[in-house]
Amino acid sequence: MMNFWKGTGRFTLMVMALLLTMVAVAKAEKKNGPDVTYFKLENGLDVVVIPDHRAPVVTHMVWYKVGAADELPGVSGIAHFLEHLMFKGTDKIAPGEFSKIVARHGGEDNAFTSQDVTAYFQRVAKENLPMVMEMEADRMANLKLLEKDVLTERDVILEERRSRIENSPSSMLSEQLGATLYQSHPYGIPVIGWMHEMAKLSRQDALDHYKKYYAPNNAILIVAGDVTPDDVRKLAETTYGKVERGPELKARQRPMEPPHVAPRTVTLEDERAGKLTWQRYYLVPSFKTAPRGDSEALELLMKIAVEGTTSRIYKALVVEKKLASSAGGGYSPNGLEYGNLYVYALPSKGVSVKQVEDEIAKIFEDIRENGVSEMELKRGQNSYIADYVYGNDSQSGLARRYGFALATGWSIQDIESYPDRLKAVTVEDIKRVAGKYLNEASSVTGLLVPKPKQTADMNATKQ
Amino acid sequence: MMNFWKGTGRFTLMVMALLLTMVAVAKAEKKNGPDVTYFKLENGLDVVVIPDHRAPVVTHMVWYKVGAADELPGVSGIAHFLEHLMFKGTDKIAPGEFSKIVARHGGEDNAFTSQDVTAYFQRVAKENLPMVMEMEADRMANLKLLEKDVLTERDVILEERRSRIENSPSSMLSEQLGATLYQSHPYGIPVIGWMHEMAKLSRQDALDHYKKYYAPNNAILIVAGDVTPDDVRKLAETTYGKVERGPELKARQRPMEPPHVAPRTVTLEDERAGKLTWQRYYLVPSFKTAPRGDSEALELLMKIAVEGTTSRIYKALVVEKKLASSAGGGYSPNGLEYGNLYVYALPSKGVSVKQVEDEIAKIFEDIRENGVSEMELKRGQNSYIADYVYGNDSQSGLARRYGFALATGWSIQDIESYPDRLKAVTVEDIKRVAGKYLNEASSVTGLLVPKPKQTADMNATKQ
Repeated sequence: MMNFWKGTGRFTLMVMALLLTMVAVAKAEKKNGPDVTYFKLENGLDVVVIPDHRAPVVTHMVWYKVGAADELPGVSGIAHFLEHLMFKGTDKIAPGEFSKIVARHGGEDNAFTSQDVTAYFQRVAKENLPMVMEMEADRMANLKLLEKDVLTERDVILEERRSRIENSPSSMLSEQLGATLYQSHPYGIPVIGWMHEMAKLSRQDALDHYKKYYAPNNAILIVAGDVTPDDVRKLAETTYGKVERGPELKARQRPMEPPHVAPRTVTLEDERAGKLTWQRYYLVPSFKTAPRGDSEALELLMKIAVEGTTSRIYKALVVEKKLASSAGGGYSPNGLEYGNLYVYALPSKGVSVKQVEDEIAKIFEDIRENGVSEMELKRGQNSYIADYVYGNDSQSGLARRYGFALATGWSIQDIESYPDRLKAVTVEDIKRVAGKYLNEASSVTGLLVPKPKQTADMNATKQ
Repeated sequence: MMNFWKGTGRFTLMVMALLLTMVAVAKAEKKNGPDVTYFKLENGLDVVVIPDHRAPVVTHMVWYKVGAADELPGVSGIAHFLEHLMFKGTDKIAPGEFSKIVARHGGEDNAFTSQDVTAYFQRVAKENLPMVMEMEADRMANLKLLEKDVLTERDVILEERRSRIENSPSSMLSEQLGATLYQSHPYGIPVIGWMHEMAKLSRQDALDHYKKYYAPNNAILIVAGDVTPDDVRKLAETTYGKVERGPELKARQRPMEPPHVAPRTVTLEDERAGKLTWQRYYLVPSFKTAPRGDSEALELLMKIAVEGTTSRIYKALVVEKKLASSAGGGYSPNGLEYGNLYVYALPSKGVSVKQVEDEIAKIFEDIRENGVSEMELKRGQNSYIADYVYGNDSQSGLARRYGFALATGWSIQDIESYPDRLKAVTVEDIKRVAGKYLNEASSVTGLLVPKPKQTADMNATKQ
């Protein structure tokens, strides 16, 4: 399982291994899970309250059911750009003041955008919850965008793209792999946007996106912490409750992929690349779109085959045969429409890409033919339960678990039954999904190849 | 140069080598070219009259400035589907009667769709011109679509896709190469559409497309043949002149490609594939988007390097070294936004793909370093002039040359000066564009690999 919560600064863009979809979030266990309350305001806002009375703090999040994959063609990056612009103020809050106010009260705040969601959060002392709810509700309806602020902020996102993507060969390759894996679906477009389209994003583009998607009936409020459902309901009614409904949006529908019939390869040579890196993505369903049980079995298949140092790939390639200095992977089940399987390896010096590929193919072939052992399965399942239990200790982790899952179409029941459903996966299930989804025709393989540096001196000599 | 005019039956879908853009059309020469007249009707219809008095026949074409690349996301195939549905009749013409009426009068008709245009044409005796103009103008405004006819015709296009694409490994690979070459621009989507989207195309989708794009102010009428401009003007005014303007459309704008940074490879293994085939596409500008002179130089570069049996690639790979049983390629300059360079080779028995790739790389490298000879250039230019002169002999060829070019943003001046501009290309230009555009990072390489057939018997033995 890859960690989907990367970056801690404000305006965090979710840059994931492949930027494609967000990764596992919802592994609640009914018996041990928190005692969650759900209700809906009259204007359509979904509210989830997650009690946590260990300390007098509260995590407050608003999740909008819109992400980069909902952008209009040619306007890539607008979801993330608007996330930045949400800090530009309202009639009540001066530009740039939002976070300063939170910080002055000892809190922290952040925001992020993925392919499917855009979320804002603050973590504050419980007595400041009314204030942040007031402020967040205010900017849900009353954002003020000045042309000059928009232009300044656009420079910020362009610079963000330069530093995070263009300056990183592995990010560039990830982006290319995404663009190649998807032939039709917008998950192939990077969340941050293509540079040439970002450079043209306008105040009007941002306002169009804002007016269409930012409204209580397209949002989910999560409050986790030292509060009662009644407290939250009263506060929500006097803050978010005053915000008017937005347009009635149809269920999100994006162009789906045609059948994949041919494996693809992308080779990026770069002087800045550190080590030769091999990686592969397989397009598979997400939890939301997979037949019942397949997503759960894929989680465990990848756990056993590629995830972490106890995985088969790590043991075979790194520990035993020393073909690779590192190897791993995982399953990303969280997209509205698609998930992906991810595998990577860094071939050791003198080892060819083909040797590594063949060895990995052998591991997969073995699982397809012979499945996995009961012990491996049990260990994988236990590992998930452990992750879940640890996850319950994190207030913000719980808020994200519920928020992300609900915003991408899971029900609370889905979230809470997930650990039990993982426990129900059998050895036979794993063999079956390995045969069904580890399919080269729907894969794309990436090679990051270090290129010898051309120094200035060498160039000079040449001329 | 690839021939872009494929298929002769009605409802011809333009399935090109890569389905990406249409291929060279406009090579007129001022001195020898036809004496073309242009005028515009009050309702915005552009009219071009091309005299040809050798026989009492007329070619009549209407070109709509809309193609598959203008489709809404998720509605792929609607441009081509509507082309089929245009034969479903109006209040005056019963469903399916259009072509029968033309045939009864000894004429023939056809239609086709590309990424950028949709066109309808008839070739009739001159006395029948008023009739076909009346009929074509009628269906520009008064198309009648019955739900049952739409559903029946949808089965026809689904079957067309099955027989032309799904049953042809090389077409399947072409489609995959297109989808991989383009990461953002809709040229990556096949003209005929993705099967899963075609299967959902509705009467309403067709009507939406029709109402938006089918109107005199988005169309070009070409009449070539035994007519005078005055004849055509009078007829046009009493037929098309009665059709009302449609919506004022903005200049077509599609999402453009991000910079390409990594070469891609697509490998299709198929039992039905005849021979191992290697091919490569490079994304380059079209005539419309290239800096002045680059498109012209690319035409000649590809003519010299890869086109036909006098090309360097053919001589080296097929004739001298016998590395390939066939080899060739060309330049497709006609897209509104992009063109592409195409190269292919069929490795001889026992020859590896790498040998072929290396040999082709050597040919390109040589041109990048040393250019081409004056003699090669001269021969390439002469060959174009010859094509042009022969092209002038074909009435329908002329109609297509003007229609396609005008519908994709060329001016008449562009068309008529093209041969002169090809003649102005220098050896230095060719060296320059070879260095600029034969860039692996913007290429995609396709391999069609015959897979040993699994016979029913073999399967039976295995079980």
